[in-house]
Amino acid sequence: MADDLKLFRTWSSAYGLRIVWALKLKGIEFDTIFEDLADKSPLLLQYNPVHKKIPVLVHNGKPVCESLVILEYIDETWNEAYPLLPKDPFKKAEVRFWTKFNEEKLLPSIKKASLGHGREKEEARALTPEYLKHAEEQLEGKKFFGGEKIGYLDLVFGWMAYLINVLEEVDGTTLINRERYPLLTKWMEIFYEIPVFKESWPDRDMLITKFQNYVWT
Amino acid sequence: MADDLKLFRTWSSAYGLRIVWALKLKGIEFDTIFEDLADKSPLLLQYNPVHKKIPVLVHNGKPVCESLVILEYIDETWNEAYPLLPKDPFKKAEVRFWTKFNEEKLLPSIKKASLGHGREKEEARALTPEYLKHAEEQLEGKKFFGGEKIGYLDLVFGWMAYLINVLEEVDGTTLINRERYPLLTKWMEIFYEIPVFKESWPDRDMLITKFQNYVWT
Repeated sequence: MADDLKLFRTWSSAYGLRIVWALKLKGIEFDTIFEDLADKSPLLLQYNPVHKKIPVLVHNGKPVCESLVILEYIDETWNEAYPLLPKDPFKKAEVRFWTKFNEEKLLPSIKKASLGHGREKEEARALTPEYLKHAEEQLEGKKFFGGEKIGYLDLVFGWMAYLINVLEEVDGTTLINRERYPLLTKWMEIFYEIPVFKESWPDRDMLITKFQNYVWT
Repeated sequence: MADDLKLFRTWSSAYGLRIVWALKLKGIEFDTIFEDLADKSPLLLQYNPVHKKIPVLVHNGKPVCESLVILEYIDETWNEAYPLLPKDPFKKAEVRFWTKFNEEKLLPSIKKASLGHGREKEEARALTPEYLKHAEEQLEGKKFFGGEKIGYLDLVFGWMAYLINVLEEVDGTTLINRERYPLLTKWMEIFYEIPVFKESWPDRDMLITKFQNYVWT
């Protein structure tokens, strides 16, 4: 029996897109259910009763929740088709370290630096360059965070490739100085042009409208 | 050559103790370097320049940072001696899901409910029962979160076994109604009595003093 794979996501969420990219790289077929977070489907609430959030990957009826948990699940379940995580435990630990760094430092900081307000925004703008420097350093001597090929960490940082310039336009400021972070800049361009990712990019005008109306919760 | 293992931790941190418990369960010898977070050692700053935090595990000169990253590293590097994570990808995903739940929901909520102030404390006290209910449910029909034996998730939730009654004494309130959460209550008692963990428990009076002087940052 072929695998039955359903991905619950929204049209714009980077957490959902990570899963799309992983499945595309591995050549795995799946169905997409687009959720409206203002009117969540009964199925989403059934599959993720704790957080009631996307993404959820339902594999042969069994739900897996939380984007990073899903990524690891996909890589373990279909490992031979395009492995995402390195095999070596130390290298794997490095990938997990920088993944956590993205989730807890870089991503929230850039979000606050562009969509935040007042002192919180100022503090985030002050911290962001240090975080970007760390990200830039991870690309030294490499084309991708994963080395010669896209790996797990590229999917984690992938939100930058389609959201940085949107957030810059919405905020009317520069979030990433392209001359100061040339490796990151080049990586964002290359990532955006990956053929199997092309059809997944959310519409830029719709993203701008979304973030112009963004209410911090 | 025998492995050279150094663990940088503090006397009281639950994040550091997770690593102690994992190494003890696997019967791996290691040296401990106790850090004073008010006066961090040059070695800690060298090994964890990004976060400057404990725990750090240095294995043959190579540092691994972040407690959950270290736990996975230990389990992958010395897998045969007492495996911590289940082998099955779906069961592993469930463990990772509840791990994230502890880190982002249960632990912060109980910390705020006991050491927080004002509205933040009230909100946390209102949310905690729902989180505890989820944790209680994970123990249904099982002795440990890991099943018949202590597993990865037990180490993640292990902080409760030695901190809940300390926080209750400091705050002068009940954080966990023992009658409403009998499985969790029993589990905390059993976890605290595990022979190889016994020598790792921080001094209770010192913990009370520490949290009485706790300043939220």
